[in-house]
Amino acid sequence: MTEPISPLAPKNGFPSLPEIPGVKFASVNAGGKYTDRDDVMLVHLVEETAIAGVFTTSRTCSAAVENCRAKIGGASKDAAAFLVNAGNANAFTGGLGRKSVEELSDLVATSLGIPPGRVFTASTGVIGEPLDHQRIGSHIGELKANLNPGAAAAAAKAILTTDTFPKGSTTELRINSETIHLAGFAKGSGMIAPDMATMLAYVFTNATINQSTLQAMVQQAAEETFNCISVDSDTSTSDTLLVAATGRNPASAIQNHSTPEGQAFYQALRHVMLDLAQQVVRDGEGASKFIEIKVSGATTPDDAKKVARSVADSPLVKTAIAGQDPNWGRIVMAVGKSGAMAERDLLSIWFGDILVAEKGWVSPNYSEQTGVDYMKNEEIQISIDLGLGRQSATVWTCDLTHGYITINADYRS
Amino acid sequence: MTEPISPLAPKNGFPSLPEIPGVKFASVNAGGKYTDRDDVMLVHLVEETAIAGVFTTSRTCSAAVENCRAKIGGASKDAAAFLVNAGNANAFTGGLGRKSVEELSDLVATSLGIPPGRVFTASTGVIGEPLDHQRIGSHIGELKANLNPGAAAAAAKAILTTDTFPKGSTTELRINSETIHLAGFAKGSGMIAPDMATMLAYVFTNATINQSTLQAMVQQAAEETFNCISVDSDTSTSDTLLVAATGRNPASAIQNHSTPEGQAFYQALRHVMLDLAQQVVRDGEGASKFIEIKVSGATTPDDAKKVARSVADSPLVKTAIAGQDPNWGRIVMAVGKSGAMAERDLLSIWFGDILVAEKGWVSPNYSEQTGVDYMKNEEIQISIDLGLGRQSATVWTCDLTHGYITINADYRS
Repeated sequence: MTEPISPLAPKNGFPSLPEIPGVKFASVNAGGKYTDRDDVMLVHLVEETAIAGVFTTSRTCSAAVENCRAKIGGASKDAAAFLVNAGNANAFTGGLGRKSVEELSDLVATSLGIPPGRVFTASTGVIGEPLDHQRIGSHIGELKANLNPGAAAAAAKAILTTDTFPKGSTTELRINSETIHLAGFAKGSGMIAPDMATMLAYVFTNATINQSTLQAMVQQAAEETFNCISVDSDTSTSDTLLVAATGRNPASAIQNHSTPEGQAFYQALRHVMLDLAQQVVRDGEGASKFIEIKVSGATTPDDAKKVARSVADSPLVKTAIAGQDPNWGRIVMAVGKSGAMAERDLLSIWFGDILVAEKGWVSPNYSEQTGVDYMKNEEIQISIDLGLGRQSATVWTCDLTHGYITINADYRS
Repeated sequence: MTEPISPLAPKNGFPSLPEIPGVKFASVNAGGKYTDRDDVMLVHLVEETAIAGVFTTSRTCSAAVENCRAKIGGASKDAAAFLVNAGNANAFTGGLGRKSVEELSDLVATSLGIPPGRVFTASTGVIGEPLDHQRIGSHIGELKANLNPGAAAAAAKAILTTDTFPKGSTTELRINSETIHLAGFAKGSGMIAPDMATMLAYVFTNATINQSTLQAMVQQAAEETFNCISVDSDTSTSDTLLVAATGRNPASAIQNHSTPEGQAFYQALRHVMLDLAQQVVRDGEGASKFIEIKVSGATTPDDAKKVARSVADSPLVKTAIAGQDPNWGRIVMAVGKSGAMAERDLLSIWFGDILVAEKGWVSPNYSEQTGVDYMKNEEIQISIDLGLGRQSATVWTCDLTHGYITINADYRS
């Protein structure tokens, strides 16, 4: 049985992304794993663009991740580029993998007339197969010729793998009466776990902000957004989030996070990143439900997140929700195994606004039928009060269905 | 689609368990969740029996686990009893749950003429529903009347839940030319994760050994057996392992672990526990493959186990194996996310004796077809050399199939 896969696309589809002054996109079919769609994206960023990034914490990270990490925070103010291919992750490909990244960086740099240190590549797809970088490299000229400020949507589609829809998000804010735009897109559907940056996500803005301030904001926002989602508890070798601020606007620069402009920009950035992260969950492999897990009453923020992740990652909780079974006993189990401080007899659990369990047992007002009815929703909210302290955390995940098994028992063939 | 569930029962079925002097068994249908089979087991243990136990590490453990933990190591040398029901875990049932355990302990104690402190209960099944202890209590007289040294196999069946077969194991050793027997059984199929004792397991021996020595041996052996298996990374609220040594043999007592007798007994105990633990994996919910994961070359034993568990618990590794896909890239991914020290470019991976990857990339002698052929086996061995140090660990798990989803999306209905 193959269940319907991903009926959870955002209601309004891919948003209309505004052009960001200083940013141009191109995509092409370079003839890899995907033969009937574009599978390589190039982004060109004007000189002076500040680029911040966070990456996978994996100890077996890809060559591109290592290469990007070394380049982030560099002193160059030259124009810059992002090059991304889908279908092959170029991970665990030894010295050849490093060579592929360096040669692609050099090709892009030469073509665009920028230093290789300003070229950030990423690869997503199967792990362990050599990347035919010459095949990709032969399309750089075509990509350069097609660079266009209005081509973000096509670029967002070119980086997808098992995704069933592209993820995009945009917002804007006012600084000195001037409109600052943010627009971003992401890919990701499986191998999604907390403690990562994300699969691949790119956010662009014309804000003026220095690299170190932007980097600090991106790291903080990643903790609250991409690091709070989980599809299957598996962490990718290739997770990459890059945020580019072109400074192409008439307003004054954002000096730091604590100014009113800094705070407004941070909220806008966090909004776009959270929107993209939640879209990744909605497109979780095989997902039929979008699940929000809110934990309160923890003694430390770390404990709150541990409990939320333990519930989000529990196969038994996720299969129960897939089966529309209000099996709250499995939530109790997942709290108990989390490693965080918890007192069974202080624990309370809600489905949405329905109090299910309190003080170590089922609530006297809870009826099984209420739970059964609630579980028919496509969006499920589980709230857990540990009753110990004042710290909280929220994590987003999806259910575990036959669709996930079908996709992942047969990904390569 | 529902795949065939659990074709992995041990080849020789449930073993013929020897009678253990000083141990008697009985089982009965007490009319709970299971109406067509026995669902309660009583074990009677002769006076002077040493009883050791390990239990779930869950912070939301069941009332029976709390009760047993408090009783283990008590000074009483009276006769003792185990009472176990299947179908209801009596976990997260508040004050009523504690009352159920105490009343059942009292009923068994009165019936058998032993102190309540020598009665160890366990409950397995759905979490959060009140246990009708009076219904179970009304069968204590019948259970007592049926106690029989030869009824271990029926008792092993009475404690099953989603298991598809009972798990039994036996061995023997010689001390002072006398034969010492060990016999045990276990139940467990889902909600199985490392860091637990097990679901429920009971081992009996007529060895003579003091409680503190036995307790130390059981804890050590649990680390190497039940704590090295995983079905789905979820840890039960009710895990209980009890080992009872009746001392009913003419040989001299085992003084401590370091004597020749102590070492021989430890090996026999570990053998039975490992056999039972591996049978639990073979009966993992929906399992179609039995998987051994051997990690070597770690800098610490803890790191070796972290890597082995990370691979064993990875949904992407487990679904690849279910699909007979030699997707070793996912093993690289799981090593990378484990949190243990690892160097991508020192890593080697084998399927059985086939060298798949070395020095950060696929081995030049490996062919995909060799991997495809290997994955058709029902027993899969994955070896990982981290290339950093001399520590190692082995963990056993099963694959993740449609069967697991089918079982767990519909457990309660």
